[in-house]
Amino acid sequence: MGQQATGKIKVGQVVGVGGIVWSCGDCRCCKSNREQYCSKTVPTYNGVDVDGRPTHGGFASAMVVDHRYVVSIPEKLAPELATPLLCAGVTAYSPLKRFCGLEPGLKGGILGLGGVGHIGVLIAKAMGHHVTVISSSDKKREEALQHLGADAYIVSSDATKMAEADGSLDYILDTVPAIHSIDQYVSLLNPDGKILLVGAAPEPLYFTCSALILGRKTITGSFIGSIAETQELLEFWADKDLTSKIEVVPMDYVNKAVERMEKNDVRYRFVLDVAGSYNKR
Amino acid sequence: MGQQATGKIKVGQVVGVGGIVWSCGDCRCCKSNREQYCSKTVPTYNGVDVDGRPTHGGFASAMVVDHRYVVSIPEKLAPELATPLLCAGVTAYSPLKRFCGLEPGLKGGILGLGGVGHIGVLIAKAMGHHVTVISSSDKKREEALQHLGADAYIVSSDATKMAEADGSLDYILDTVPAIHSIDQYVSLLNPDGKILLVGAAPEPLYFTCSALILGRKTITGSFIGSIAETQELLEFWADKDLTSKIEVVPMDYVNKAVERMEKNDVRYRFVLDVAGSYNKR
Repeated sequence: MGQQATGKIKVGQVVGVGGIVWSCGDCRCCKSNREQYCSKTVPTYNGVDVDGRPTHGGFASAMVVDHRYVVSIPEKLAPELATPLLCAGVTAYSPLKRFCGLEPGLKGGILGLGGVGHIGVLIAKAMGHHVTVISSSDKKREEALQHLGADAYIVSSDATKMAEADGSLDYILDTVPAIHSIDQYVSLLNPDGKILLVGAAPEPLYFTCSALILGRKTITGSFIGSIAETQELLEFWADKDLTSKIEVVPMDYVNKAVERMEKNDVRYRFVLDVAGSYNKR
Repeated sequence: MGQQATGKIKVGQVVGVGGIVWSCGDCRCCKSNREQYCSKTVPTYNGVDVDGRPTHGGFASAMVVDHRYVVSIPEKLAPELATPLLCAGVTAYSPLKRFCGLEPGLKGGILGLGGVGHIGVLIAKAMGHHVTVISSSDKKREEALQHLGADAYIVSSDATKMAEADGSLDYILDTVPAIHSIDQYVSLLNPDGKILLVGAAPEPLYFTCSALILGRKTITGSFIGSIAETQELLEFWADKDLTSKIEVVPMDYVNKAVERMEKNDVRYRFVLDVAGSYNKR
């Protein structure tokens, strides 16, 4: 923050910024804590700011951000461990809270165990849900069950296990950003079950109408989360003593990090230490 | 009803039966007034009853039905005018009430003006919504606006009008039982808008993930309604003085009626007078 910090934030405070640095403040979405759906938002990365200049997000050593889009990092949380919450974390938290309402005892599925998925498992467990990880291979079974605390693990190509799980889940957080069968996962839901879609496949997905109709099932999308939800998640995370998996790397590693990310070779998020402050602590 | 009528129903009372004559009574759905989603329901038509015999629905002069699936027709309603409510009517009422909560001032769309659609317009208007009918042709414009009281009418192939309506609707009750573009209608929704799917297309439909994600939009299915909702709709209908459009025909017209129905030549439902009681009143 600069010397003119306004609002709730004080100069010198450790703060975070998520996926948005500005929104209009006047529309229905902005006025109802859904500013991430405002049609005029300025994204933190690769956007055009209100002054016409590009936004550089976390690749810059300083940034301009409207004070409404700054969250406070709780003292208990190391800043580098808070960073994945500002985008991946709130992407999982927002739909889980909105559509499942922190209701304990729910049976949830997490489809895909990447950056969003692994935080999704931790959040859903902390909400008191029974969590099944569904993955395309058996590779992450130990990780899911032993390290993240999931209750069950299904390989999506295992027809027997998938059939056994038929109609057993209240929701599936679908984090897969690739083409996949929605019907296969709709059939895992019980009546009133929900697919919470947060990974955007690049091509359209297909679904069978009667599969939704005959169980009042829902496919819904969700995009990051509001600032209020982001702040709430940070407190929830600190309160529950949760820890995301990250790899902190220095700025001169950035190109290598991008290369590795493209090969899925990171568990689960790189945190870029732009100012070189991490090793000095 | 026979001489052994039990429960809330009295011998001689005018009653109705909807799409279901039995369900298990023990599952989560049955115990939470969602018995239409019980996996063991016996359908009123073309089903196999608990005694192993086929169900004949409204084509029979007498029927066996569990008293839990009998609704009382309010005195104010002519029985023939109540009949479309027991299936088409509650198919529209249930999702409108569940997902929109009788909230006045909502902006709704009704996609397809057939049996379910025309009752949907009447119910949505009676709930206090602003109602836009969306149809594949201009043929039903006068019907929708003048006779059913809709507020607006859009032909879905009119790109200009569709673009003008972009992001303007809180929900669309989608009654079209044929293949159609979901994306086209998702784009008419505002953030948190919902497609309420009640017409089952025979082939899968596709949708674009980002279109749902970037507005937290929802596609949900809904199947008829519960008995509680059916009874509630009958009272609502009587209370609001609503009238569905029907054509009452005698039993010996049934084959002709089916032929005409297949050609969409009915506004909007045939009511089959099995016992020949209609003209004797």
